[in-house]
Amino acid sequence: MSVSVQWIDGGVTAPKGYKAGAASVGIKTEGRPDMAMLVSEAACAVAGTFTRNLVKAAPVVWDSRIVHESGAAKACVMNSGVANACTGEEGAALCRSCAQAAGEALRIDPDSVLLASTGVIGRQLPMDKMRRGIGEMAGSLSDSREAAAHAAEAIMTTDTVKKEFALTFELGGKTVTLGGMSKGSGMIHPNMGTMLAFLTTDAAVEKDVLQAALTKCVGESFNMISVDGDTSTNDTCLLFANGLAGNAKLCEAAGADFETFTEALMLLTKALARRMAWDGEGAHALLEATVEGASSKEQAVTIAKSVITSSLVKTAVAGHDANWGRILCAMGYSGAVFEPEKVDLTLASRAGSLLIVSGGVATDYSEETATKILSEDEITVRIDLKEGSETATAWGCDLTHEYISINADYRS
Amino acid sequence: MSVSVQWIDGGVTAPKGYKAGAASVGIKTEGRPDMAMLVSEAACAVAGTFTRNLVKAAPVVWDSRIVHESGAAKACVMNSGVANACTGEEGAALCRSCAQAAGEALRIDPDSVLLASTGVIGRQLPMDKMRRGIGEMAGSLSDSREAAAHAAEAIMTTDTVKKEFALTFELGGKTVTLGGMSKGSGMIHPNMGTMLAFLTTDAAVEKDVLQAALTKCVGESFNMISVDGDTSTNDTCLLFANGLAGNAKLCEAAGADFETFTEALMLLTKALARRMAWDGEGAHALLEATVEGASSKEQAVTIAKSVITSSLVKTAVAGHDANWGRILCAMGYSGAVFEPEKVDLTLASRAGSLLIVSGGVATDYSEETATKILSEDEITVRIDLKEGSETATAWGCDLTHEYISINADYRS
Repeated sequence: MSVSVQWIDGGVTAPKGYKAGAASVGIKTEGRPDMAMLVSEAACAVAGTFTRNLVKAAPVVWDSRIVHESGAAKACVMNSGVANACTGEEGAALCRSCAQAAGEALRIDPDSVLLASTGVIGRQLPMDKMRRGIGEMAGSLSDSREAAAHAAEAIMTTDTVKKEFALTFELGGKTVTLGGMSKGSGMIHPNMGTMLAFLTTDAAVEKDVLQAALTKCVGESFNMISVDGDTSTNDTCLLFANGLAGNAKLCEAAGADFETFTEALMLLTKALARRMAWDGEGAHALLEATVEGASSKEQAVTIAKSVITSSLVKTAVAGHDANWGRILCAMGYSGAVFEPEKVDLTLASRAGSLLIVSGGVATDYSEETATKILSEDEITVRIDLKEGSETATAWGCDLTHEYISINADYRS
Repeated sequence: MSVSVQWIDGGVTAPKGYKAGAASVGIKTEGRPDMAMLVSEAACAVAGTFTRNLVKAAPVVWDSRIVHESGAAKACVMNSGVANACTGEEGAALCRSCAQAAGEALRIDPDSVLLASTGVIGRQLPMDKMRRGIGEMAGSLSDSREAAAHAAEAIMTTDTVKKEFALTFELGGKTVTLGGMSKGSGMIHPNMGTMLAFLTTDAAVEKDVLQAALTKCVGESFNMISVDGDTSTNDTCLLFANGLAGNAKLCEAAGADFETFTEALMLLTKALARRMAWDGEGAHALLEATVEGASSKEQAVTIAKSVITSSLVKTAVAGHDANWGRILCAMGYSGAVFEPEKVDLTLASRAGSLLIVSGGVATDYSEETATKILSEDEITVRIDLKEGSETATAWGCDLTHEYISINADYRS
């Protein structure tokens, strides 16, 4: 089965019944928008995946409690500039204050308000500014295209572009819409729950079913990207479902409708994940590694992740250099077992496709053609292990001077 | 017990009975010395540790066979410029040819000739040049200080300084000398056998005992450094012991003499390992992470390695920025379990020492003082987990623009 979807212009307000807002309250020094709010007019089932870092930011602790206890929410308040991580009991208290302020402003239960923060670790949230922003946003919420775009912009930190997608598809005879926005450009690594991502749908889905769909999709999208090998303290992915599309509620994590919903969600999460890797800090190119002919899914995943995570592969891509030995090297230390002397490697991009390694040794390829292929901004390394039929794809980016500049001076 | 050693000026020829040579045969394009040879006048017990990368270079396969089968050798031929990795059967045949050429030139069994290569992966060794170099070096071997230095220079690739140390100590009433040289600046990561390192001693040590001492020392020295997270295909550490010091042969991996020998070897391997991290590609500073108060050795090792491996910690050091949240973040995703709210962090260097985190949250420290400490070329992060009494130390370096420049253009 393959779901048929239509991509539409939009973000988190594309599904029925969602409004968004943004504000500039001065948490970021540059005066850029730094707060966002997302509100559903109807009660939502909510699913979430969170960082596996032992050091968890205060809003991550707040959200996981709500997602695991009630699985129900109506709003989310986001800020950039301060991560509210490593902030002790004061940080936890500030979460409660934010949810209470939003609950009052929106006249809803504070326990139906989710929170997400991103920015510098170890600083406390400026509560006065947060309160002002919450009041401002609650009074100017809108379901317009622009409102979604402003929210997507407000959660950016070192991101250079905002990341939003939306699509529609048919589910049980009804048109269902999925929308999403995400941020993330540094401190991004496969072993995570995910980075900040906010997904909305008007489909009616029971909360455990929603969680099952989200967990599967995050595993093959956000968890398959890496920018710098650092798993953040704040990774959060939330999926809201308010049921306004009118479809028969999905109450089981199986069956044709569940498959359709999950496939559509997979397309959305992969689009956002690829976009995050493409916009990795300082990146000039998206690096996609596809492993084919694997004997197990785990083997394929391990090798694909190792290739896109290698500093030496990443700098070779930055230099447009077909230094394929580094790819075999990264496969070799991945921990996965395979036969190096069977491996084929193909480089591909808009500029063409080139088999550079066959049976573990170099073909007589043209370095000039290889450099041309590697000079595009979306590069694919296709690895054939010739052992079985499993596959996996991971996404990373090149490692450039700009990554160093961004991170050596981040707090200054 | 603590061994008393005297550091002396010297390298692999410092112990009795070792000669070295070097040659420039044009494997590296720059015409720098690119071959080295080490020969013992007496038969040696030999121990070795090798890369754990599944993709192993041809000389690694050659050496591990000899080390594991006979544990005896008399010579080693080294080259830089070409790694002889991912070179298939032709690469293995070239190893045999090199050992045979050296065997003929030195009039010894080819199976007592070890080999080591470092450089570009995927290219074949230029056998004509290798043969010429072997002949040249066999005719000009010397036990002089300069001969050791030339050999240490010939194995360099992106290294900016040669790495040699030597020391003497008393063992069973005899003066024993240990010498060593190593290379390595990129493709260096803790999960390795080690980078290229060649250690010599005139102590008399049975081969299994020698291996036990080497394995222990490599675990706490070379395996505790990282430059870029990439485990090489060529990592090799060889230790030769020719017995010319006249000590009663060490035949057991236990007892006071074994402890003394191992402690002295540990000092030598740690000195070389620190030097490699300090000279990491593009590095301006050595980054040392010491974990104290751990409940297990494994916990301490895991956390120390995670901190020195983090791209975000490394770029913060490059920017002289006390962005301690990144240190706690890297501890948190290490996989080790600990209590973040108990952690103390201290930054130290020649410029002073500063407690920046106490009980998991920031102290009221001076950013100015922190920046001064981080502006030195040897930085220590001291982490106290306050759980037990185990400790571990790992060494890395900062991540700078030069790392990118070196690796984006390596083959060009």
